[in-house]
Amino acid sequence: MITTRFTELFGIEHPIVQGGMQWVGRAELVSAVANAGALGFLTALTFPTPEDLIKEVQKCREMTDKPFGVNLTILPTLKKVPYTEYRQAIVESGVKIVETAGYNPREHLPDLKRAGVKVIHKCTSVRHGLTAERIGCDAISMDGFECAGHPGEDDIPNLVLLPVARDKIKIPMIASGGLGDARGLVAVLALGADGMNMGTRFMATQEAPVHENVKQQMVENDELTTDLIFRTLKNTARVAKNTVSQEVVSIEAKGDATIGDLAHLVSGQRGRVVLEKGDMDYGIWSAGMVQGLINDVPTVKELVDRIMEEAQQIIDRLRNAYS
Amino acid sequence: MITTRFTELFGIEHPIVQGGMQWVGRAELVSAVANAGALGFLTALTFPTPEDLIKEVQKCREMTDKPFGVNLTILPTLKKVPYTEYRQAIVESGVKIVETAGYNPREHLPDLKRAGVKVIHKCTSVRHGLTAERIGCDAISMDGFECAGHPGEDDIPNLVLLPVARDKIKIPMIASGGLGDARGLVAVLALGADGMNMGTRFMATQEAPVHENVKQQMVENDELTTDLIFRTLKNTARVAKNTVSQEVVSIEAKGDATIGDLAHLVSGQRGRVVLEKGDMDYGIWSAGMVQGLINDVPTVKELVDRIMEEAQQIIDRLRNAYS
Repeated sequence: MITTRFTELFGIEHPIVQGGMQWVGRAELVSAVANAGALGFLTALTFPTPEDLIKEVQKCREMTDKPFGVNLTILPTLKKVPYTEYRQAIVESGVKIVETAGYNPREHLPDLKRAGVKVIHKCTSVRHGLTAERIGCDAISMDGFECAGHPGEDDIPNLVLLPVARDKIKIPMIASGGLGDARGLVAVLALGADGMNMGTRFMATQEAPVHENVKQQMVENDELTTDLIFRTLKNTARVAKNTVSQEVVSIEAKGDATIGDLAHLVSGQRGRVVLEKGDMDYGIWSAGMVQGLINDVPTVKELVDRIMEEAQQIIDRLRNAYS
Repeated sequence: MITTRFTELFGIEHPIVQGGMQWVGRAELVSAVANAGALGFLTALTFPTPEDLIKEVQKCREMTDKPFGVNLTILPTLKKVPYTEYRQAIVESGVKIVETAGYNPREHLPDLKRAGVKVIHKCTSVRHGLTAERIGCDAISMDGFECAGHPGEDDIPNLVLLPVARDKIKIPMIASGGLGDARGLVAVLALGADGMNMGTRFMATQEAPVHENVKQQMVENDELTTDLIFRTLKNTARVAKNTVSQEVVSIEAKGDATIGDLAHLVSGQRGRVVLEKGDMDYGIWSAGMVQGLINDVPTVKELVDRIMEEAQQIIDRLRNAYS
């Protein structure tokens, strides 16, 4: 067992987090993560209405009696999303841990704080981390250039981003991006983080509600099998490299792509078909460079136990190396 | 003192390397690094002729009785460079450690091996590392996306690159890029490296033969103050962001730049004027993201001692975190 400020603040056993993943953050995975002693997040917008989110929280509670949270991601979307209603549903559900991502979560904080909810905000830069701390977030999840989904536009990897952030930001910080095993956990703890988030790695577990084809693809892919898309729109996303991502890259390389030109290729519903039906070249789906470290599809508990056991071995090796 | 396969193979006290840096890898810095118990490299092509390199080796030997090496960087250049003669000068000088970089060092290995020289090859990808191992290099220096100079075209940061490489490559490996303090050292040891290389961080030391303006600029700069240039030529270089690097970026963004268009801006002689005369916007000069972690200009010994002391504290903190 490794104890940090993060495990103490959130009342969890291991400094390991399964942060929000659209379509994937469902009760099956989140309860397995909680039961393994780590901290999982249901993803609010995976559920079509705030009422469906409340039902998923109830379902997850029936599957675990340990803490879990809800992710609320606020991003530019073509269709208006009722964020306030989702926030109210979170409060009503009694969940006490929220991960916010995307835009500044300022408008959601007073309600959440009043309800005794602790907030972790996902950041991709030191300046965003400082803002999160100033507006009253309880912790940050710092996303390096390695990560799947939205790494921001600065392209600073965790090896540099984490220690620079640690020198300037006081609240607990977990690291996100490029992490999939004990080596990564010990590395980010050394760099100043209080724990690690894993996204892609948790997708390749038995309990992840993701088609077997997707899990096998992550085992086959390596660290080079990602693409950065939407760079020209200043809304960069790292996704698994496939025929669709390559088509987007090629359209963007021509220099004048608009979100309208790309919308049919990159629609969330198409990504959902990849994840749920395993139709691998139907749309884009998020996966990070950590694919290079994924060689199996264990249960969540096997994965978490292996990481914690190997982390102890690594720390012992480091201890024995100095004299 | 931290002992690894790397410190044992090269007979050094600390797992810290100051790898080749054009114009900077001179006897003043390299002897200070050796005297601090780390491994420094003279940069062969900094000296106008092979005979001048031999003289610099002799000068360095008068300043330290500890091991040091010579870097031989083989890159595309406008002017033909007599690599064979430089290699012969290295052998003749009696130096027993060489760092090769750039192209595959195959043609230089038989001579070096015959002379009992150990070779570390700088790589930016797992496939280059595997090649280096296969052709008989003794160790590799793995350069992540973070690094100054030439990070390659794959853009894989060390957090992912090192453990993936460790799983596939058996010979000792040091990490390079994004490293400037004890946190980085412990992190890369956890990730599977046997030591760390620092370039930019060693430029900001008292003994580095670099103008005071350059050292102060590195203290003022942060992790965001770098530019990637020559991406369009598939010979990407990470340099300190300044008016010249921004001009190169802007020319490349137009899409059809040739090395001829850029040559007057990026000439090595102009970079040399920046480093030696402190004329900060006269040319491009290399510096990595680790600038965000540079806050002072210590002596080399102060830097190395501080890193080793803090590394021990970090390992003790990790040891105390688990129960």
